[in-house]
Amino acid sequence: MQFHGKNFIGNQLSAGTGISFHGVESATQRQLDPPFFEAADSDIDRALQLASNAFETYRRTDPTKQGKFLRAIASEIEAIGDALIDRANSETALGLERLRSERGRTTGQFRMFADLIEEGSWVDARIDRAIPDRKPLPKPDVRRMRFPLGPVVVFGASNFPLAFSVAGGDTASALAAGCPVVVKAHPAHPGASELAAAAIVRAAQSSQMPEGVFSMLHGRAPEFSLAVVRHPLAAAVAFTGSLRAGRALFDAAAARPRPIPVFAEMGSVNPLFILPGALAERSDQIAQGLRQSVTMGVGQFCTKPGVVVALNDDATRQFADSFSKLMGSAPPGPLLHAGIYGAFCDGVKQVSSLPGVRTGAASASIANQAAPTVFATNADTFLNTPKLAEELFGPSTVLVTASSRAQMLDVARRLEGHLTATIHGTPQDLADYSDLIDILQQQVGRLIFNGFPTGVEVCPSMQHGGPYPATTDSRTTSVGTAAIERFARPVAFQNFPQQSLPPELRDDNPRGIWRLVDNKWSRDPVSVQ
Amino acid sequence: MQFHGKNFIGNQLSAGTGISFHGVESATQRQLDPPFFEAADSDIDRALQLASNAFETYRRTDPTKQGKFLRAIASEIEAIGDALIDRANSETALGLERLRSERGRTTGQFRMFADLIEEGSWVDARIDRAIPDRKPLPKPDVRRMRFPLGPVVVFGASNFPLAFSVAGGDTASALAAGCPVVVKAHPAHPGASELAAAAIVRAAQSSQMPEGVFSMLHGRAPEFSLAVVRHPLAAAVAFTGSLRAGRALFDAAAARPRPIPVFAEMGSVNPLFILPGALAERSDQIAQGLRQSVTMGVGQFCTKPGVVVALNDDATRQFADSFSKLMGSAPPGPLLHAGIYGAFCDGVKQVSSLPGVRTGAASASIANQAAPTVFATNADTFLNTPKLAEELFGPSTVLVTASSRAQMLDVARRLEGHLTATIHGTPQDLADYSDLIDILQQQVGRLIFNGFPTGVEVCPSMQHGGPYPATTDSRTTSVGTAAIERFARPVAFQNFPQQSLPPELRDDNPRGIWRLVDNKWSRDPVSVQ
Repeated sequence: MQFHGKNFIGNQLSAGTGISFHGVESATQRQLDPPFFEAADSDIDRALQLASNAFETYRRTDPTKQGKFLRAIASEIEAIGDALIDRANSETALGLERLRSERGRTTGQFRMFADLIEEGSWVDARIDRAIPDRKPLPKPDVRRMRFPLGPVVVFGASNFPLAFSVAGGDTASALAAGCPVVVKAHPAHPGASELAAAAIVRAAQSSQMPEGVFSMLHGRAPEFSLAVVRHPLAAAVAFTGSLRAGRALFDAAAARPRPIPVFAEMGSVNPLFILPGALAERSDQIAQGLRQSVTMGVGQFCTKPGVVVALNDDATRQFADSFSKLMGSAPPGPLLHAGIYGAFCDGVKQVSSLPGVRTGAASASIANQAAPTVFATNADTFLNTPKLAEELFGPSTVLVTASSRAQMLDVARRLEGHLTATIHGTPQDLADYSDLIDILQQQVGRLIFNGFPTGVEVCPSMQHGGPYPATTDSRTTSVGTAAIERFARPVAFQNFPQQSLPPELRDDNPRGIWRLVDNKWSRDPVSVQ
Repeated sequence: MQFHGKNFIGNQLSAGTGISFHGVESATQRQLDPPFFEAADSDIDRALQLASNAFETYRRTDPTKQGKFLRAIASEIEAIGDALIDRANSETALGLERLRSERGRTTGQFRMFADLIEEGSWVDARIDRAIPDRKPLPKPDVRRMRFPLGPVVVFGASNFPLAFSVAGGDTASALAAGCPVVVKAHPAHPGASELAAAAIVRAAQSSQMPEGVFSMLHGRAPEFSLAVVRHPLAAAVAFTGSLRAGRALFDAAAARPRPIPVFAEMGSVNPLFILPGALAERSDQIAQGLRQSVTMGVGQFCTKPGVVVALNDDATRQFADSFSKLMGSAPPGPLLHAGIYGAFCDGVKQVSSLPGVRTGAASASIANQAAPTVFATNADTFLNTPKLAEELFGPSTVLVTASSRAQMLDVARRLEGHLTATIHGTPQDLADYSDLIDILQQQVGRLIFNGFPTGVEVCPSMQHGGPYPATTDSRTTSVGTAAIERFARPVAFQNFPQQSLPPELRDDNPRGIWRLVDNKWSRDPVSVQ
């Protein structure tokens, strides 16, 4: 597979000049050819200008045509074949099997959003019919539905080079909403990004979409990302990554003359609580599942369980023992890139040296390979050591033992916002700890029972979000069909003639969508009164 | 009616000490008794602490009980009788008829939200059932619904002393969502605020709601408002008022260690376009309707049409002539308070002195009485004079004549975000100017055809919002049932046993709400698979 290393500015490629950088093979730290060129300021401006122009056409494009475009993207990504998987694997070391499955999720998301907009009810159409003889004032005819916001800036994430990157869920949901997308590619997988971008551009061209409906820019400096967010024509931002980077984008967007929303998913510790009945029933099974969840993707999931809480008793000591052995016997694995590897090593060193923390599992001796690591501490130490509640990206987790049920609830209450929380328990446990569910519900976007938080189902009921610092907007999700709602706003039409209304709001309901008519949900046409 | 002038901190009153201020009779500028006491920092803290405590109970209170509470508020407000109308009229000079109608809207909103939460479908429940034998991975059972955010800080608006103030739509929608409310009362109507707050506290007590579900604070300095927004226990902010104040609250909320959403409605110029066919058909009718819309509430509506655009031709000159005469013959009226009066006088002086602007209607000679005023200019001047596109609170409007259809569209394109835009036209006009609708739809939250923007219908399809600077979050509305969505966030439950799920997500659907089950809307129970 040949790479050109250039930026995609609408249907054109940028000049292959200026500052460049190379992809790196994660497993070997070997530099990959060719160089990739950072976008110039003029490229940023041109991409946003084209996106803004494209919006004028794209927002009015028939949803069935938009759906075909989304399906064409999925097909074009599949048509790249193994070259995409191989390059992504070189750049991330996530493994072929995982990346094939991630590709399935990526294409599945585009098809899911195509289904969603073809069906059409997502626009939340509402109709209140006129009552001309109402006293003291006539009631007007008011009809409302969602319309797209405008060009969306999407930041590719490092840990999902396909499903949360150039052709990831943010891009799919923004395009589905009717918004052009400008992606800032993640510099850790520029080759996979180029392949995905080329697939989207091919799909846009074959589907006769307006030029600028999609662009992709390379850039590495934080200042570059801020410049994209500050561009006057950007209407919204979607991001998955670190708290520091996400907050910087949020701050820049809020400080604009015209602020724009930033939907940043900034990771999480995903606390997991093991209740005594569950531990008595299936200690080994939980240990094995936990090891798999902590080490999956070499611990580089936003939903990795980074804190595990149980009562300080014999059963937990036995669990800790077998879990530590399982983790110790798990093979080290290569992290996504040298930056994450360095941060993981630093983190392990810092946490290990904290008073009151014991560290299980030896560190790996292979360069850029992270060894599965277990830290153990008691709840007193945990509650007094904020560092222990911070996300550490990589295959590690902190086992916290609480001296009592009350202290376990204290730990739960002291958590900040997270994407998920998990409870392992029996029916009796749930009865005994019903307040734990209630506390955790306040802190997270998703609660899991007798399972593990890794593996986020892409479906209408998924909530991948959570209170700050898990995200900048807990009222939204970045996974599942509801993700589309981030990129749209309602507009109401008062006393408009039928022929000037969008089809979704016309009496005859030509699209057959669900609508709230006079406060009742219906797919029926509206009768003329 | 006796007033105590104190702050409502949960069910208690603050000490009647410290800095105080008086209400002012708008029509006479006479000081009203008694003094009102500004809340101390400790009062702010205590109100938020009580709200946070109350949230623990209130968020889990049965919706039918919450509904009774909302209905009790409506009844308690009605039970105050004329005393509320009289005091509000003294403090705002809006007139008894208008205030009685505003009271009807206020109580109507509480009952509408009671209906909404009793019915229950607003929680947007979604259920995706498990498919245990799905390959390669089993599909989990995932169920999601909305839960309240936490204590909401509401800022009372000056121009609707009842319907957008202490017991206004923000308070009603936040309480309906399950969020306690801390109101910062508007200092221009402290007496009406006290009466409304006392009504809400009485309703909370008679409905056995937890103490702290409602508090109300007096304060005048911008720094006071910022302190409330910065309080760590505040979860969201709702505001209606000026761009300057709204933006300051937004900035403070975004800069918090844990940012919180600010739903600020910051006014608008509400452009109104008169197309040639409509002018030929019913010039006088439009002039009369426009005069009424511009002068209603002495021009102190967020939806007052502040810019009127028509073609520069004989018909428009004739229209301008008769409209100016109508405005000139309309009586001056007292503005809400001295600050608004001063700003209106300054604004009229500034706009009048702009080159290329003619000013119709004489200024009033009565103190604190604003005379209906028409400014006239051409589109060239308008496009080059940003001051003309700024909101001027009071009974004035700017008539802009465009030299051509193209220039009229230019004016539309150059508008910033507004709450509304209005088009007067015939079917032929709409065919000739179809792109005007499309342009305006990008700029506003509501489009009105052959009507006037003042008078916002409270209903499910209302969108009272719009792109910045009309609001800080164009994806939300502050009027209508959808306003409740601002104060809630979704939580998903994965593989949870039935008895640990909220009723809304249980198989048997005990509340009979609409739910998205396996991607189909239904009110049926879910069958066990």
